[in-house]
Amino acid sequence: MKSVSFDKIKLGGFWKDRFETNRDSTIPSVFDRFSDTGRFKAFECNWKEGDPFKPHFFWDSDVAKWLEGAAYSIALSPDKELEKKIDEVVDLIEKNQGEDGYFNIYFTVVEPEKRFSNRDCHELYCAGHLTEAAIAYYNATGKDKFLLLMRKYIDYIYQVFLVEDSAGFSTPGHEEIELALIKLYDCTGEKKYLDLSAHFINTRGTSEKDSGIPDWSNQLYFQSDEPVRNFIRAKGHSVRACYLYSGMADLAAKTGDKELLEACKRVFDNIAEKQMYITGGVGATCNGEAFTEDYLLPNDLAYSETCAAIALAMFARRMSAIEPNSKYDDVAEAAIYNCILSGVSLDGKSFFYVNPLEINVKKYNQHKKWYKASHNLLTQRVEVFGCSCCPPNIVRFIPSIGDFIYTYNDSTVFVHHYIESEAEFDGVSIIQKTEYPNEGDIKFTVKGMAGDCIALRIPGWCDYFTINGKPFSGEMRNGYAFVNIDNDEQDIELYLDMETRLVSANPEVEANIGRVAVCRGPVVYCAEEIDNGNVPLNNLIIDSNYEAEIKFSHDFNSYVISVNGFEDTPSDKLYSTYDPNAVAERKLHFIPYYAFANRGESDMLIWFRIR
Amino acid sequence: MKSVSFDKIKLGGFWKDRFETNRDSTIPSVFDRFSDTGRFKAFECNWKEGDPFKPHFFWDSDVAKWLEGAAYSIALSPDKELEKKIDEVVDLIEKNQGEDGYFNIYFTVVEPEKRFSNRDCHELYCAGHLTEAAIAYYNATGKDKFLLLMRKYIDYIYQVFLVEDSAGFSTPGHEEIELALIKLYDCTGEKKYLDLSAHFINTRGTSEKDSGIPDWSNQLYFQSDEPVRNFIRAKGHSVRACYLYSGMADLAAKTGDKELLEACKRVFDNIAEKQMYITGGVGATCNGEAFTEDYLLPNDLAYSETCAAIALAMFARRMSAIEPNSKYDDVAEAAIYNCILSGVSLDGKSFFYVNPLEINVKKYNQHKKWYKASHNLLTQRVEVFGCSCCPPNIVRFIPSIGDFIYTYNDSTVFVHHYIESEAEFDGVSIIQKTEYPNEGDIKFTVKGMAGDCIALRIPGWCDYFTINGKPFSGEMRNGYAFVNIDNDEQDIELYLDMETRLVSANPEVEANIGRVAVCRGPVVYCAEEIDNGNVPLNNLIIDSNYEAEIKFSHDFNSYVISVNGFEDTPSDKLYSTYDPNAVAERKLHFIPYYAFANRGESDMLIWFRIR
Repeated sequence: MKSVSFDKIKLGGFWKDRFETNRDSTIPSVFDRFSDTGRFKAFECNWKEGDPFKPHFFWDSDVAKWLEGAAYSIALSPDKELEKKIDEVVDLIEKNQGEDGYFNIYFTVVEPEKRFSNRDCHELYCAGHLTEAAIAYYNATGKDKFLLLMRKYIDYIYQVFLVEDSAGFSTPGHEEIELALIKLYDCTGEKKYLDLSAHFINTRGTSEKDSGIPDWSNQLYFQSDEPVRNFIRAKGHSVRACYLYSGMADLAAKTGDKELLEACKRVFDNIAEKQMYITGGVGATCNGEAFTEDYLLPNDLAYSETCAAIALAMFARRMSAIEPNSKYDDVAEAAIYNCILSGVSLDGKSFFYVNPLEINVKKYNQHKKWYKASHNLLTQRVEVFGCSCCPPNIVRFIPSIGDFIYTYNDSTVFVHHYIESEAEFDGVSIIQKTEYPNEGDIKFTVKGMAGDCIALRIPGWCDYFTINGKPFSGEMRNGYAFVNIDNDEQDIELYLDMETRLVSANPEVEANIGRVAVCRGPVVYCAEEIDNGNVPLNNLIIDSNYEAEIKFSHDFNSYVISVNGFEDTPSDKLYSTYDPNAVAERKLHFIPYYAFANRGESDMLIWFRIR
Repeated sequence: MKSVSFDKIKLGGFWKDRFETNRDSTIPSVFDRFSDTGRFKAFECNWKEGDPFKPHFFWDSDVAKWLEGAAYSIALSPDKELEKKIDEVVDLIEKNQGEDGYFNIYFTVVEPEKRFSNRDCHELYCAGHLTEAAIAYYNATGKDKFLLLMRKYIDYIYQVFLVEDSAGFSTPGHEEIELALIKLYDCTGEKKYLDLSAHFINTRGTSEKDSGIPDWSNQLYFQSDEPVRNFIRAKGHSVRACYLYSGMADLAAKTGDKELLEACKRVFDNIAEKQMYITGGVGATCNGEAFTEDYLLPNDLAYSETCAAIALAMFARRMSAIEPNSKYDDVAEAAIYNCILSGVSLDGKSFFYVNPLEINVKKYNQHKKWYKASHNLLTQRVEVFGCSCCPPNIVRFIPSIGDFIYTYNDSTVFVHHYIESEAEFDGVSIIQKTEYPNEGDIKFTVKGMAGDCIALRIPGWCDYFTINGKPFSGEMRNGYAFVNIDNDEQDIELYLDMETRLVSANPEVEANIGRVAVCRGPVVYCAEEIDNGNVPLNNLIIDSNYEAEIKFSHDFNSYVISVNGFEDTPSDKLYSTYDPNAVAERKLHFIPYYAFANRGESDMLIWFRIR
């Protein structure tokens, strides 16, 4: 299977808007906040004790993701001013890179004597992100300076970790470099990069040298409690985990390592079937930003980091590129249209790190004080975090969304996602005309595919679909409808039914017992207090004989939904005789989850009672 | 208002059984466990470093409560063997009491140099419990040795704390002595004991010397963050709090201090209206064994200590003795028939410290690890705890239950609780024939009350009652039906309707949203997995058009209840389209909450879904 890179695809509609917001608002805003907080200046590598803005050991990666995202944006929408900003950073890297190729801000200016000694200090993670940025910039502009600097650094890492084994640890505490090395291998054809990725993946969970971990942590947190091929479920820090799984999938794809692929499949199924929020969020707890136990998915205390949803989508995309299966696309889509987009405000300038599925500010503060783990819930997005990994992850995710749409082999093009776009690759042209995710109609015009198949994913949420106006009677396999293409230019009309639907969770998910979520297409809906008369959202009940009305909202560029139901009119006594009639009929009003918290602070709820 | 002491009352029926179990099983069992763990031997005051059973600073109080309970039992059911055991302890106290009157095991043998220096070391709490025991033994037997020893100790405490103010702190870290001193004042007529109680109560929250508290704590934990007359809600360690409130109520009753009484009323109302479990349990969190925020009453993580329920019942009894109001009796009754009785097994030999309202062992362990405060939930009662305050509190509570029944003034006898019994006091005789709490019929035969009133409490849970077979048309005040007594011997028949009912909680109680509890009379019911086909209890739903069947269980000496409802037949997928028909009709089976966990480990639930 081959993938189609985002730069072969011209976005329209929903994602063109998102791309433009990212380009015009998010990229400059994150640049400004990173400038304000000294992150760009840190590349001058002249910080000394007493100066403001002491570099943190993850700052390289924050800027690297911004560089990568800016490069993707330039690839689709050239911008010489933006290139200049990138070039300035590249010049600073060149200036401050060691003779040996080493480059890391923190270990150059703060603790130079501790280079490659502390497994939890993100050096290899930063190197991976800088490498991804360099590749992106090379692909976007053809300029190879950044790429060559990073190759020099990676060559040094190869020497230290693979040839000499002279570092204080064997594998990265924060994974990411594994997948970056595969990209570098793809970009350069240099096999040592593939070998180094394989080394990091295969050594993980096996090395005595990796036993030096911080007190607050454990090997499970680092996905190092066992060799990766033994994995049967997702464990530990969720962003690290999903980056590792992505690297494992990449390596399996390159090497045909079936055992490794099986481990990826087990982990993926565990996430999708037992550890994922309906929003595609993962890493349920703040306690280690981690995966927890199967089905332990609290709503108010969901950690569900934006970066983790992005990393999960990356993992899912890789799995579907290896063995197309709509279950992978369903997970990617859930993350994309819910937990990832909720990570950024509609104006593109502010961000969530944590994406809760319920906000009840008063209750949250009570519970936190008396019962629950530390947490960093914000009820409003902010422009920058101390640990500001999520904003630049949005910066790079949005413009590269096109990566998700197509894979192909000799006989079939798989359409994994429906996005208004025009694609050109390998002699094939595919135009998708659609208002997805608002509408379920997708009109394809394909050229250059006569005699081949187009495999259209039928999403798991879709109970009814037609192709060219008729129920489909052709081949369905792994969730795709295989449509033969007879003509050199051919139109195909796919209709995916997008009735508003109510979704239940497995009753093992304690928080959702007796509750349902309102969904439409891939979009999960939530209710905010401000649209619902400012009554406590848990007083509202959906009628199981519900009727849903949809109305287009220009504010959200999406439908909003009203459902009939009830409002409790409870006694104000602590305990009182149950009165089945103490409810009043009313409408409940929902907006897309991704659009919540864009109108000031408001309580929010996804999972509603039903009767 | 005068109170009627338990020793004026001969118990029958439900409480006679409980008394006998306490006498024949609980008293010997706790004696044996306290012997096993060195608590009795500790009174020899010859422990030295290296010996087993190092005394803890609360051990005096553990044994004191056992002594008090044994004395109450002897008062109703003479037992020379038991007296001998008590006398042996008294002899040891006499032998090891200081010349100055001081007696405390820990500060005699472990840290003698630290006497009265550490506010959190329970010295005054132990002194209070020993004093209560001494009074009880004096009242039961007429033997005054124990009482005189304790008077000598209290006189010394008076000197140290009130005359010299020479201790390292001003008021007890663990309250209890305040109410014991009032009892001692009642017993001896010695006003200095009243003064000392008033001193401890009035000084609380005002003394610089009390600022020395442990790091893990704060003044709120100790009810010392403000003067007691400022209290507007219940705060801090719930057992300490309710013992203090009991002492405050006693002091207000003795002195007519209206300001103090108003503080008691505010605190009581806060507990009853916002901080009490339906079981009468209080102190919702393990974090400080404390009251929390209003309406924060989780079921699975309920701390709800047995001692706290006992202390709340004590507080409620005192309030109702000052100003009879059925709201006080309702709270006492809720605690008595639910959280207090759940604290001891049906065979009288094992105990709960924590009384959860939900047990789901698997979920509990998951939640604890990832989200929640440390906790010490046990799913089975045990015979002794390291901190074994609750078992001997049961030992003393059960035989003195008669204290709760009556108060009286010149014109009226108030019946606060319905208990099969014969009472003789002040020329009055009252016989109650009843199978309460199993049945709502109570037949009174009263003598010596011609021209007076009997005021019968109509419980808050009772929607319909008759007196002498007819709806009552006489005076109702503060929840009592005032019945005039015309004859020297007169029968009165009270009927309290005891239909099974469903109870809702205020929706501010997040854990109970959309849920109901099954209740009958004062008894809260729960379901155990073993009676319900071993399905997850949260899969079961009560039908809002329910019909309840009751059946007498000889195992529980109580009715068990079956209610029609539904069982979810959920999809095993993580998320699936809501299916309103995915339920099967079935019966749900309930037992009294106080009888749970008597047949091996089983999940348990009180608050059920309803539809």
